[in-house]
Amino acid sequence: MSKQIVKPSILPGFMELLPSDQILFNWMMDTIRKNYEKFGFIPIDTPIIEKSEILLAKGGGDTEKQIYRFTKGETDMSLRFDLTVPLARYVAQHFSDLTFPFRRYHIGKVYRGERNQKGRFREFYQCDIDIIGNGNLNIINDAEIPSIIYQTFRDLGFSSFTIHINNRKVLNGFFEAVGVEDKAMVLRTIDKIDKMGLEAVKEELLNLTISNDSVDSILKFIQIKGNNDSVVESLKALNVDNETFREGLEELSKVVHYIRYFNVPEENFSIDLTIARGLDYYTGTVYETILNDYPSIGSVCSGGRYDNLAEYYTSQKLPGVGISIGLTRLFYQLREAAIIDTNKASTPSQVLVIPLENHLDYAIKTASSLRERDIPCEIYFDDVKIAKKFTYADKLSIPFVISIGENEINTNTVSIKDMSTGEQCQVKLEEAMDIISRK
Amino acid sequence: MSKQIVKPSILPGFMELLPSDQILFNWMMDTIRKNYEKFGFIPIDTPIIEKSEILLAKGGGDTEKQIYRFTKGETDMSLRFDLTVPLARYVAQHFSDLTFPFRRYHIGKVYRGERNQKGRFREFYQCDIDIIGNGNLNIINDAEIPSIIYQTFRDLGFSSFTIHINNRKVLNGFFEAVGVEDKAMVLRTIDKIDKMGLEAVKEELLNLTISNDSVDSILKFIQIKGNNDSVVESLKALNVDNETFREGLEELSKVVHYIRYFNVPEENFSIDLTIARGLDYYTGTVYETILNDYPSIGSVCSGGRYDNLAEYYTSQKLPGVGISIGLTRLFYQLREAAIIDTNKASTPSQVLVIPLENHLDYAIKTASSLRERDIPCEIYFDDVKIAKKFTYADKLSIPFVISIGENEINTNTVSIKDMSTGEQCQVKLEEAMDIISRK
Repeated sequence: MSKQIVKPSILPGFMELLPSDQILFNWMMDTIRKNYEKFGFIPIDTPIIEKSEILLAKGGGDTEKQIYRFTKGETDMSLRFDLTVPLARYVAQHFSDLTFPFRRYHIGKVYRGERNQKGRFREFYQCDIDIIGNGNLNIINDAEIPSIIYQTFRDLGFSSFTIHINNRKVLNGFFEAVGVEDKAMVLRTIDKIDKMGLEAVKEELLNLTISNDSVDSILKFIQIKGNNDSVVESLKALNVDNETFREGLEELSKVVHYIRYFNVPEENFSIDLTIARGLDYYTGTVYETILNDYPSIGSVCSGGRYDNLAEYYTSQKLPGVGISIGLTRLFYQLREAAIIDTNKASTPSQVLVIPLENHLDYAIKTASSLRERDIPCEIYFDDVKIAKKFTYADKLSIPFVISIGENEINTNTVSIKDMSTGEQCQVKLEEAMDIISRK
Repeated sequence: MSKQIVKPSILPGFMELLPSDQILFNWMMDTIRKNYEKFGFIPIDTPIIEKSEILLAKGGGDTEKQIYRFTKGETDMSLRFDLTVPLARYVAQHFSDLTFPFRRYHIGKVYRGERNQKGRFREFYQCDIDIIGNGNLNIINDAEIPSIIYQTFRDLGFSSFTIHINNRKVLNGFFEAVGVEDKAMVLRTIDKIDKMGLEAVKEELLNLTISNDSVDSILKFIQIKGNNDSVVESLKALNVDNETFREGLEELSKVVHYIRYFNVPEENFSIDLTIARGLDYYTGTVYETILNDYPSIGSVCSGGRYDNLAEYYTSQKLPGVGISIGLTRLFYQLREAAIIDTNKASTPSQVLVIPLENHLDYAIKTASSLRERDIPCEIYFDDVKIAKKFTYADKLSIPFVISIGENEINTNTVSIKDMSTGEQCQVKLEEAMDIISRK
């Protein structure tokens, strides 16, 4: 029976990992999830396919171009392109069943038909948290968010990173005060300062027909530097006569004040007046997180405060604050930059149990005892040469091999080998389990 | 600014859960995953969108009708309809990077555009494990699978369930011996015995133009009952002169023999000569798992042995054995039958920390200490009446409330209330954490 063979491959722009990478990826996802849960965020899971009218209710921009949209039967449906729109729909739809403030996390795949280029993915995981208030939401929530970012990235193994914090009202109010009309345009321009540099930003601002004086004020403003308290002081000293500015500055100084209560070390957060987050969506606090040794990666965790989550689906006013980690892209970049070691374990197994001379009964009992103690393990069943069995453990980087032969059975012991040191001994199973647990 | 509001809703046939259900669903998924990992299965994660030529390589049947298939640009793509085809593609594609036997698990969403009916979902989770051999795979693997099913369903809280086991070679060989030509058709007919009953199956078999004698033999055969050993003995006593039958019987008796090594209690597995698994895919051992108190739910975990996983993508011969739990459907049915209690916690938080008189500093420190001890918790930040704060804890079924006021701060204590008993006491934080941990 000869079959036509289809060459096995996946679509470009999709990430698929080999086991050792997958285990590391899952560890990162579990670490994020554990931190989100530690802060009392509630899991939700929404369909990947939604009605197109829901996902495109806001519409416009890249969304419409990039969305995977299709029909089945009469139904116009699309794949979600982020987790925020589904959250808005979820909260509006289940409003009366939810308790507010609603703290939710969502880890899931989203889809964007982006142009195919290195490091850009058409299917990727987002790991989001948001706190949604009913009508209003205390500003202290904005100060808690950086502590969640801090603990998560610390648990992911990073130490040198900075959470950049700004407030859109400070920016907006300041621009109003200096007479900028198209604030969104100026925000977008300023957002590019890291990529383009000061001079290019200046030129672009002048092209926007903003007066020389105003451009100078803007540039001076966004160059305010120093520690967090001195930045707040400098902003106060500007004496900007604008209500929005005053409100934003009040919020910003409260956020900085309370962040310290949450034990975020001073070196891990910093007011940065240049970050705006391109989206028009944010209305108050905004965050970006930079790995200090790898600034070129860009922000690894971003978000902010918004006035109204679900305006397209409900008349309820639902302010919120949230962040998102784009895990697929983060993993890709960490691997590319060789920041993470992807050559670790290729299996959850901590032990390979090898029955010599086919002493299956005792081998299976041993494995069962290990599993009772929550030690993941497997038994090598295939009848091959002993060396090949050890090779299997080696290839999968299984840390321990326990072998069972005539002698072990007669003495009610096991032989355990530490595969990294080569050390081997014959001990009672209890003792072997202690050796494994210690490692 | 008045906006057009789109009524928030999801597509029919998709499951979306409220928080308390979601937490229970996730607990089930975590329990399955933990068991799969305990047996040394390796996680993989494949794209939900694949090339249509890959997913439809085998083609035919319901698959083509139900698949979500669309084009973006020039590309013909589809959503995966199971996790087996992606596994076949994965193993064929990454063959040289994998170590065999390859033990993989995969938990993920799959898509089928089924007709809309109660309990049928168009998006659902499958939780699969498979052990793939390179060229061959020891029959003992077939005996290990029931122990994984047993431990998983035990950990899911079930005690009365039976893993039904059969072997396709026994069936095929027997049918050959009694002169049945269209074995697939007979298998499909027999598979319906639980739904249709013996008489209807008999009639259908006669309609297949099988001789009266053969139909009698078949019916006698599939009615062989008794404990596992006596079924094996009865089968041997048939003295069927057919090589496939003998091979299958040898496998079946080995599987029964070794299952006992794995500590699966006798009452939790049973040879059942009527199960065949409709798919033509399986070639040896087959499994179905029935909750004895709810047989109408059907099999909650099924699978079996197959000769060749990836014949459409590689010429390598890759035999395997595996099972699948359809978690979305299982959850739905357990909830419908009120077997699971979905009115439990609505948040991962174990503690709500309430700052009285806005003593935020101390409250935040308390929450940080709890989190250091891996106790998920949250702080109530909103400035509302104290009763409303307790109502929040009540609504989310948070087990403990810790409140912080002037007195607690001055005495370096906390007031902790057990929300289920109403008991309250003022103690050192360490002691409060012990109270929480004990619960």
